[in-house]
Amino acid sequence: MTERTRLRRLPQRGSNEIEAVYAILDAAFLAHVGFAVDGLPFVIPTLFGRAGDRLYLHGSAASRMMRTLESGVPVCLTVALVDGLVLARSAFHHSINYRSAVVFGTARAVEDPQRKSEALSVISEHLIAGRWADARPPNSQELKATAVLELTIDEASAKVRTGGPADDEEDYALPVWAGVLPLTMRAGEPLADERLMEGMPLPGYIKEYRR
Amino acid sequence: MTERTRLRRLPQRGSNEIEAVYAILDAAFLAHVGFAVDGLPFVIPTLFGRAGDRLYLHGSAASRMMRTLESGVPVCLTVALVDGLVLARSAFHHSINYRSAVVFGTARAVEDPQRKSEALSVISEHLIAGRWADARPPNSQELKATAVLELTIDEASAKVRTGGPADDEEDYALPVWAGVLPLTMRAGEPLADERLMEGMPLPGYIKEYRR
Repeated sequence: MTERTRLRRLPQRGSNEIEAVYAILDAAFLAHVGFAVDGLPFVIPTLFGRAGDRLYLHGSAASRMMRTLESGVPVCLTVALVDGLVLARSAFHHSINYRSAVVFGTARAVEDPQRKSEALSVISEHLIAGRWADARPPNSQELKATAVLELTIDEASAKVRTGGPADDEEDYALPVWAGVLPLTMRAGEPLADERLMEGMPLPGYIKEYRR
Repeated sequence: MTERTRLRRLPQRGSNEIEAVYAILDAAFLAHVGFAVDGLPFVIPTLFGRAGDRLYLHGSAASRMMRTLESGVPVCLTVALVDGLVLARSAFHHSINYRSAVVFGTARAVEDPQRKSEALSVISEHLIAGRWADARPPNSQELKATAVLELTIDEASAKVRTGGPADDEEDYALPVWAGVLPLTMRAGEPLADERLMEGMPLPGYIKEYRR
């Protein structure tokens, strides 16, 4: 994962590669957004959503990240999903199985309240599909307090590692356990809010939540 | 999480805050490393290790990230752990429970083979405590092919959100399920390598692996 991320111009829409980037973006819900302020790099974890070739971010209207990004500076948005630990017989060949996507682009503010609300629904549905319809929608004051950014993907690349360890031939004779330890994000038992209305059923999208 | 990360000068070693940063760094194993090349931001996911106030990164000696970072450019290293989805009655008050740490510093190459090997053991033990002693250690050729960086922490901040949703008072009357869906990284069944030596027992540090 520390090898150079190959950057490629976006191929035609619908090609395998951009679809691979989309699949990884859609499987993740936490992005790490990178930008520079006076030459100093910042990396901020944030939620996001995707609609076609646009990514949406939101935050407080007072946030430095939001104000910096809406000025149109170059943005790098990265997601990474860890799928397992790869244990080889040699320390050198240890690795992890992962899927990562690195996206470069520039952002602009979404100002129109209707489009803002739609973008927020995209972020919400990306995180918990089915939730937006149940929750009280944002009112105009809440929309004003929320900054929403639309990021156009200019370039993107995907990296994936799967499978077991690959040891040097002579190391297969070593008495060392080798294999893969799969890792997954799992949902635990939902914890109802103390003030939950009596008799309120647990929605299916929470009961069946999977990433 | 999209609010501005407060940056504070590192307090005296041993204070609560730097201990909070360390605790979050130690709970995570994937970092997102940010740096700029010709003003363009890059965010690259990578493994890391910590020994006191130093962080260690490794990668291919040919990696652009490693070559860029060892030139002493400013680095931002961020880790984020998602602990749960926070479902409020209003869309606006939805959130996630998380722990994140943002570290600023500069890196230098670790060149001495002995120190390089020690740094690699720190990264390895950070990922899977107990593994380093079992695996074949790197030989001199492997050490040459591996770049190792030591990052001194100049500034750092931690952010943590815990607990349930906080709705606007009038929204508690809405018939909407509210609460927290906890999320955790879990290990699945270990998958032995096809060429595993017969009778090789599964090490305890794999059987009992927890993050």
